[in-house]
Amino acid sequence: MIWIDPILGTVAAENAPIVLSGVLLSLVVVYLASKLGGEVSKALDFPPVLGELIGGVLVGASALHFLVFPESGAQYTDSLLMPILQWVGDLSPEAVAEVFASQSEIISLLAELGVIILLFEIGLESDLRELQKVGYQAAIVACVGVVAPFVAGTVGLMLLFNVPAIPAIFAGAALTATSIGITSKVLSELGQLKSREGQIIVGAAVIDDVLGIIVLAVVASLAKTGEVDVMNVVYLIISATAFLLGAILLGKFFNQAFITVVDKLQTRGKLVIPALTFAFLMAFLANAIHLEAILGAFAAGLVLDETDRRKELDQQIIPIADILVPIFFVTVGAKADLGVLNPVVPENREGLVIAAFLIGVAIVGKVMTGWFTFGQPGINRLAIGVGMIPRGEVGLVFAGIGSASGVLSKPLEAAIITMVILTTFLAPPFLRVAFGESSESEPLVAQTTLEKEPQTLTSE
Amino acid sequence: MIWIDPILGTVAAENAPIVLSGVLLSLVVVYLASKLGGEVSKALDFPPVLGELIGGVLVGASALHFLVFPESGAQYTDSLLMPILQWVGDLSPEAVAEVFASQSEIISLLAELGVIILLFEIGLESDLRELQKVGYQAAIVACVGVVAPFVAGTVGLMLLFNVPAIPAIFAGAALTATSIGITSKVLSELGQLKSREGQIIVGAAVIDDVLGIIVLAVVASLAKTGEVDVMNVVYLIISATAFLLGAILLGKFFNQAFITVVDKLQTRGKLVIPALTFAFLMAFLANAIHLEAILGAFAAGLVLDETDRRKELDQQIIPIADILVPIFFVTVGAKADLGVLNPVVPENREGLVIAAFLIGVAIVGKVMTGWFTFGQPGINRLAIGVGMIPRGEVGLVFAGIGSASGVLSKPLEAAIITMVILTTFLAPPFLRVAFGESSESEPLVAQTTLEKEPQTLTSE
Repeated sequence: MIWIDPILGTVAAENAPIVLSGVLLSLVVVYLASKLGGEVSKALDFPPVLGELIGGVLVGASALHFLVFPESGAQYTDSLLMPILQWVGDLSPEAVAEVFASQSEIISLLAELGVIILLFEIGLESDLRELQKVGYQAAIVACVGVVAPFVAGTVGLMLLFNVPAIPAIFAGAALTATSIGITSKVLSELGQLKSREGQIIVGAAVIDDVLGIIVLAVVASLAKTGEVDVMNVVYLIISATAFLLGAILLGKFFNQAFITVVDKLQTRGKLVIPALTFAFLMAFLANAIHLEAILGAFAAGLVLDETDRRKELDQQIIPIADILVPIFFVTVGAKADLGVLNPVVPENREGLVIAAFLIGVAIVGKVMTGWFTFGQPGINRLAIGVGMIPRGEVGLVFAGIGSASGVLSKPLEAAIITMVILTTFLAPPFLRVAFGESSESEPLVAQTTLEKEPQTLTSE
Repeated sequence: MIWIDPILGTVAAENAPIVLSGVLLSLVVVYLASKLGGEVSKALDFPPVLGELIGGVLVGASALHFLVFPESGAQYTDSLLMPILQWVGDLSPEAVAEVFASQSEIISLLAELGVIILLFEIGLESDLRELQKVGYQAAIVACVGVVAPFVAGTVGLMLLFNVPAIPAIFAGAALTATSIGITSKVLSELGQLKSREGQIIVGAAVIDDVLGIIVLAVVASLAKTGEVDVMNVVYLIISATAFLLGAILLGKFFNQAFITVVDKLQTRGKLVIPALTFAFLMAFLANAIHLEAILGAFAAGLVLDETDRRKELDQQIIPIADILVPIFFVTVGAKADLGVLNPVVPENREGLVIAAFLIGVAIVGKVMTGWFTFGQPGINRLAIGVGMIPRGEVGLVFAGIGSASGVLSKPLEAAIITMVILTTFLAPPFLRVAFGESSESEPLVAQTTLEKEPQTLTSE
């Protein structure tokens, strides 16, 4: 039987078409899960992204096992897609293992492109001037949201649960994260991205992301060597600040150049390709100086937000985001193993008690941040605090690194994962309630374009 | 130094962010090459896709080495991007080799998704009723275009160049391919996709793709075992026919179900996600029964072409195609090594003489097909024949499989690659000229939406 593959050629001639099959089938699963979950969630008046996460849980490691990933410990034998591919391609077990590894890597990378596009879109939607106006408040919210849960979590674990210092610090660090992806997506779904509260939350989440990278660097070097690499911390602080400020300052000059170039182009994709080239370049640069790629994409979006062609660009980014962003949310859900929540398993119980404590700290430590926004009379403080709650993918990274470094006990690791999962899943409905209260007194801001479908021109 | 990665987690914690960096940087290179090439080509009044291919050649294995692939024999040390990544990530040589392999696999897969989206878009643009009307002519064109160059090439090589039978048959088989991707893209760029000629070419190219798979199966089993696996050939013919006819027949019923589902959806991507889910599922099914994935995507496009929401869908597919399709064309260009064309290298000379013969057969054997379209008075026969010329990625697969099976001598292999490259690069300008002649007597058909930018709604 001959396999033909127009791109991968012949070196991987045995496996490449099967990898393509696997990716196509995974994408079908991702899209079905995201649409089913999103629609049910919407019908129940929850934000669709919650449904996408839960859809991911359903098809992922916790339930149906259609979509499992090696980095959450799964083997190819755990995946329900692999027997299909094995049968289709008549593969040896070794070949299936290779296909599984390749396919998982590709889906994970598509998910990363998804969150990069999401943050680019959020950057496009965010108003730089508005962000600058609330920058001060956002910084305070971010700092309180890092310090409060970190201190309360670490000290509480040491005093109440007799956890040694290093693992306690690690768990405290995991409490500091905020998932900018989940928060900003929910905000846009609620039509609140451009409200004052929304802009403070997004600003704080961006700053929190930078702080999180610094905290993680500190904690990981502590866990590895027992001491803090001060130079590295200083480097991260300087490079993050320089990158974000530099992008914003240069952006004002770059805008004109961008439009001049775009106006000269004649071929298809003349707006979206230059825009994405810029976004991917910024994401690469952020990654290259050891920040997160999504920060670069967000900065790129902020810069291009100022151009005259923004509305057109918004319209064209929508379908691209529509096909890539769900891969991210479904993947986050699929990677979270809800098995740690099962109280019937005896070894989960200690973890669940610690988890209850961590969740309390996680929620209180973030919700209180809303009351640290000064000089904003009438602002919805609860919504700001609630917006900072979801730990999402950032929290999973902390748990993963802690698990890999071996400093965490099994119950503590399970507790951290439980905390991450619950804060992530609770935040969307909480945020809806928090904003719902204010929307009764004053009307909601007009829906942003983020929530709209691109419409067809009927004039053709 | 700590690397954080929100998706790939910690198992591949050392490399995963660098792979992401590599993919982002490769995409920046791809987009710059495609836009520069496409714009220059357009300015010189050539189809933009020719420029994208040449842009790929410039950044690929033939020239700048920014984008090279293991399956064309490149090592990580051949890639100019790898030193950048090595420096950024402070990697060991082994890690760079892994990053190179992962990144190349991911870019190749994105290119495959690109050609899948392209064929889905072409399917959406193609009119099923129109295709059925010309189906008879298209089948004749395809069959003549397979038989004529195969016989002339094989016999000519054996008689004129004393090539043994098996390699001669292989080279003859490589002459049968038609690149549906390149041909249909040029047609849409010329606004000729929906013309009678355009629909005959697309129909013939689809049939040719199926015939090519069968020919390749025959030839490869000949090369491997010295005899033809008749069962496999019968299986391929039946499955291909059943698949395409089944898709078209079922499509009429499926359309209504699709629209009913889409009309009920409320969340973002409610049209594009179900459409792509269907396209990817069809591509998977085609791949699973050992056809090409792009045939499934084309069939999916044909089916959805009939729905009321087609214009809206067209609009939303455009930006998605704009970002994925160039990856395909640039990759095809980057993988073609023009080094075999250099007459200064002595070992290229024998290949170049054979190549001149193969190119002659390749062009004449396809151009003559236009004169086998009966019952179509006034049709542009030259344009139809010229439209079948480019071998593109399908031809490269033949060359690659021949090379891997070891039946081809070095000069013959180089000659096949040269033939593939030249037919691919000559076809776009030839096609422009062939259609240009007819456009002087009668006006061009209105541009299809494929050539339009989605426009912004100013009413917001």
